[in-house]
Amino acid sequence: MYTFTTLLSRIESEVNTLQFTCPPQSLYTPIEYILSLGGKRIRPALTLIACNIYSETVDQAIPTALGFEVFHNFTLLHDDVMDKADMRRKRPTVHKVWNDNTAILSGDAMMIYSYQLIAQTQPEKLKEILDLFTQTALEVCGGQQYDMEFESRNDVTEEEYLEMIRLKTAVLLAACLKAGALIGGATTEDANNLYEFGINIGLAFQLQDDLLDVYGDPETFGKNIGGDILCNKKTFLLIHALDTASATEKQALETWMQCETYDPAEKIAFFTASYNTLRVKELTIDRMNQYYELAMRNLANLSIEAERLTELKAVTAQLMNRTV
Amino acid sequence: MYTFTTLLSRIESEVNTLQFTCPPQSLYTPIEYILSLGGKRIRPALTLIACNIYSETVDQAIPTALGFEVFHNFTLLHDDVMDKADMRRKRPTVHKVWNDNTAILSGDAMMIYSYQLIAQTQPEKLKEILDLFTQTALEVCGGQQYDMEFESRNDVTEEEYLEMIRLKTAVLLAACLKAGALIGGATTEDANNLYEFGINIGLAFQLQDDLLDVYGDPETFGKNIGGDILCNKKTFLLIHALDTASATEKQALETWMQCETYDPAEKIAFFTASYNTLRVKELTIDRMNQYYELAMRNLANLSIEAERLTELKAVTAQLMNRTV
Repeated sequence: MYTFTTLLSRIESEVNTLQFTCPPQSLYTPIEYILSLGGKRIRPALTLIACNIYSETVDQAIPTALGFEVFHNFTLLHDDVMDKADMRRKRPTVHKVWNDNTAILSGDAMMIYSYQLIAQTQPEKLKEILDLFTQTALEVCGGQQYDMEFESRNDVTEEEYLEMIRLKTAVLLAACLKAGALIGGATTEDANNLYEFGINIGLAFQLQDDLLDVYGDPETFGKNIGGDILCNKKTFLLIHALDTASATEKQALETWMQCETYDPAEKIAFFTASYNTLRVKELTIDRMNQYYELAMRNLANLSIEAERLTELKAVTAQLMNRTV
Repeated sequence: MYTFTTLLSRIESEVNTLQFTCPPQSLYTPIEYILSLGGKRIRPALTLIACNIYSETVDQAIPTALGFEVFHNFTLLHDDVMDKADMRRKRPTVHKVWNDNTAILSGDAMMIYSYQLIAQTQPEKLKEILDLFTQTALEVCGGQQYDMEFESRNDVTEEEYLEMIRLKTAVLLAACLKAGALIGGATTEDANNLYEFGINIGLAFQLQDDLLDVYGDPETFGKNIGGDILCNKKTFLLIHALDTASATEKQALETWMQCETYDPAEKIAFFTASYNTLRVKELTIDRMNQYYELAMRNLANLSIEAERLTELKAVTAQLMNRTV
């Protein structure tokens, strides 16, 4: 079996050799730019790891893995246009370097290109992987639509929030795992268990991201602490704070949320203090741990010997800042 | 064999029963809106006509035909955002009814949805049709990129222009025909001949569109006469006018093109007079007729009896405002 590090460097070198040959080049320079910004490459790595659980070789899963990575980066490119985000991975976003039209059109080409990679899946598995990919891609768009709609709502429920992050984040991780497993030769039952594992890990991972926005280490988080608070993002923490706050506390939070000019540090401090008082940190950690435990149970249900799961478990633990 | 009218009403009823089931509904309302605006449905009709040349039934080509029509409407949706177009088929564009973000994201979902339809192609033909669709989709994006780049250039050559319209318009018509033929059971050679027929008809059709913008009947053209002139669009006519004009005439045309405030009727009259003097109308008609003749030769190369081509020839003549 391959180590995670070996699979990651394989992915990186494959990403670097992707060829965009259909003219004009100006359509592809932005695609090469966003792919060159790096990122954790966790999605294609999950495809290869899942394949490697069932097959000693992973070559046959490379195009599919790359298809998922290109699709993920396409979503980032278009999301950045929609969110008017200036920076991505410490570099200016595509629509800042070029313009909105270039970002829209290069994004479109990028999504089509992800299908070109998916289409290179071995013929006997193509239809199943293609349908999985398409269903997942539609769900990811649905997640982004919910996310945008939640911006103008203050009554988002926990259930709605969890459905949004399932669609926007979890289903793609799940599909990467399922596709890799199917290509590696897993049974449908095992592939579905790995899909559910991906959903649960995805939800746990997003709850962790919500937590880190407030309680993370500014040195290692990668984004500015309090970013979600400043833009009133309806995170698991905020939803629960609004839900459990007294009428007076809720009024104070909502006043802050309506305020258009304020000292950012003061707003972050106020929300953090409220979260501490309302114990939403503990609540979020509990929920995150529940999803993690569910994910471990999904792994326990697999028909495969435990030692073949070493890398997947290690990567998951690493993602969740845990020791196995 | 089915008549064109029968195939068109089949397409229309199939378009009306398309189901978008992946939530949220808000993502799909704009898709249903743009598909409800009509349009000639010429692309899916070509797929069914081509299929019908080789097969008595066309049911097996329906999902593929719809995939091409949904893809075409996706390109209109995103092009309207990029071109900041307010109206489409006499109705407000999606980004005007909703907003840019909705148009971008619903467009993305629409493109994915077109792949979901293409994926329903019969399994033994899936890979070939999928690759044709993807290659074509990338080319269409390339055509739009060239088209946008040409806006800020005054030195577009005839060759560049023809390559742009080949990519933006002709390859999709060609791919619709080729896909239908392959699904109907055509040989690769016949399918490729129909592809070339589609390219030539597409080029002829676009040159006709360039002509109609200047010389069309305002009652039947559907767009405002002179629209291309007002936005300095580098049409076949303008490129040849700039190319064949004397230094003085060229200077006068370029002065008009740089002018930011003017009487639209006066600008249209000036360009039309120049085109008349420079005989670019006749030149464009000649070129259009050449492509039409090439297209007819592509049909003559097919291995099929001439009577099976009756509907395709009739539709083509109708598109080109000709009598057979």
